[in-house]
Amino acid sequence: MTTLIQPLAPLAIGIDFGGTSIKFALVRGGEIIERGNSLDTQYLGSSEAILDAMVEEIARIAKAHPGVAAVGAGLPGMIDATNGIVHELSNVPGWRDVNLRDLLIQRTGLPTVVDNDAKAMTYAEWRFGAANNQPNVICVTLGTGVGGGLILDGKLYRGNGNGAGEIGQASIDIHGVPAHYGNSGALEKYVGNRQIAERAQLRYREAGSERVLDECTPAALSKAAAAGDPVAKAVWNEIGTEIGAGLSNLVWLLNPDCIVIGGGVAQAGEILFEPIRATICARTMPVYFSNLDIVPAALGSDAGVIGAAALGVASLKAVV
Amino acid sequence: MTTLIQPLAPLAIGIDFGGTSIKFALVRGGEIIERGNSLDTQYLGSSEAILDAMVEEIARIAKAHPGVAAVGAGLPGMIDATNGIVHELSNVPGWRDVNLRDLLIQRTGLPTVVDNDAKAMTYAEWRFGAANNQPNVICVTLGTGVGGGLILDGKLYRGNGNGAGEIGQASIDIHGVPAHYGNSGALEKYVGNRQIAERAQLRYREAGSERVLDECTPAALSKAAAAGDPVAKAVWNEIGTEIGAGLSNLVWLLNPDCIVIGGGVAQAGEILFEPIRATICARTMPVYFSNLDIVPAALGSDAGVIGAAALGVASLKAVV
Repeated sequence: MTTLIQPLAPLAIGIDFGGTSIKFALVRGGEIIERGNSLDTQYLGSSEAILDAMVEEIARIAKAHPGVAAVGAGLPGMIDATNGIVHELSNVPGWRDVNLRDLLIQRTGLPTVVDNDAKAMTYAEWRFGAANNQPNVICVTLGTGVGGGLILDGKLYRGNGNGAGEIGQASIDIHGVPAHYGNSGALEKYVGNRQIAERAQLRYREAGSERVLDECTPAALSKAAAAGDPVAKAVWNEIGTEIGAGLSNLVWLLNPDCIVIGGGVAQAGEILFEPIRATICARTMPVYFSNLDIVPAALGSDAGVIGAAALGVASLKAVV
Repeated sequence: MTTLIQPLAPLAIGIDFGGTSIKFALVRGGEIIERGNSLDTQYLGSSEAILDAMVEEIARIAKAHPGVAAVGAGLPGMIDATNGIVHELSNVPGWRDVNLRDLLIQRTGLPTVVDNDAKAMTYAEWRFGAANNQPNVICVTLGTGVGGGLILDGKLYRGNGNGAGEIGQASIDIHGVPAHYGNSGALEKYVGNRQIAERAQLRYREAGSERVLDECTPAALSKAAAAGDPVAKAVWNEIGTEIGAGLSNLVWLLNPDCIVIGGGVAQAGEILFEPIRATICARTMPVYFSNLDIVPAALGSDAGVIGAAALGVASLKAVV
């Protein structure tokens, strides 16, 4: 009797292009096989120097590992994934309307895709992480900003210009604080890193405690809450209630199977998830809430490279 | 030379099950061929009597017009379109967890689907009306309540339990007025028929004019605004700004190609559409707004029967 050998998932290089560093990994079927060298975007400076260094690292990994079938890069900003164009990057100057995909293809000879980093993260959590391949998934990242991505009817949803999923720009208060892109009351303006710290500082002051901003970071607040500090606990409750209110609107609109919450702020854990769940329960109906998983992201900071690699592999199928 | 005859679209019976009457139409390819008799739900009373009358009218139309391939019914409430079950109807008692689809199939012998009425309307406006088959469409109905439906990636989007598209239940103000299903600040609670009238009455009172509620209906306000009444104009501006804010959140989330706005309140026309467009422009970014059509519904009160019939026909394809 012969043993059938299952076909292997293709090898791919995933790239997570962040504001300060660019991370590389060799990935197969959602597993990191080997991590590449990281690039320091500030040290490299110009987009030309960054591009040269990216090409060099891709070539190095591909040479060391025969069988690399695709490359995927996730970048923070407005990315036209269909045409491979980086329209602009958050916090990295010099990348206006660059066809990064075609430049990489020309110089590496490897099938390549570029995409928004939140979409790469969403794809990774959906296929290999906390969302477990459910058909309708909302993925939220809580950090300096609030970003996100949508899996709808079993597909990464992009919208007209690849702009879908900007959960942090949706408003929870029509009369709320001004927001960068005009949507007053944008969720990001309440539950971003900095806003959490400022609010905590305010609440400590109201409680008669003069903490400085550094002592009010999400990490410090988590620690304080775990130690029983009532102010820190109350702040997480406020933040969770606001995130829950923003997500309730999405539940009414999209009736999802699963909401995945990741990013640095989500590290707070149950003290944040508990008011999020309670708020969504109170603000929706059982038919929406009872079949809804609200779970922490599973892949942590690896979601970017894993998702980018998977999007690279997914693009191969479209060509065959 | 022979002339090729194009295949005809199938004939279907569309049913629009409303709070007070049930309308029937024979439909082919989005065109109403003949209107059926309307049934008075209050007169008929029990769900059994309504069902009998529906079966009779379907049979009458199908007998008079050989070639009816499918039946579709749109109903106001929680409908499980996948399994054909009417979980509950707004304003019509006695319809809890009724498998209307199977009952109709058994008694008429015709392939039948049942669906939510807003989804039927959305489907009609997408295929045959104002949305012109664009891939990503948000459809909103403004009336006593605010309902809606979503076409995403060229498909009617349903979500986990067929509950997607409840635009009127999404909140525009986390600290806003209490809402029926718990989501304080729900858009519906500001721009529903009754809320518009109450607000207009308040604004007239503030302006020193003692109008009664009957003089403040959306229709009366449209007339007054057209005649230059500054209070009526200001009220429409408030309403349009709030609808625009609610829709801006959807634009950030879904980056749609088209927003179709229908229902009685939308009859106000440009005096309503102008602040809606201005608000979405101010609260989003050019990359979202410049490729976005914001248009009035085209099919009026026929959208229900046309969409239901089309959903009936669409279901045939899935079986073949």
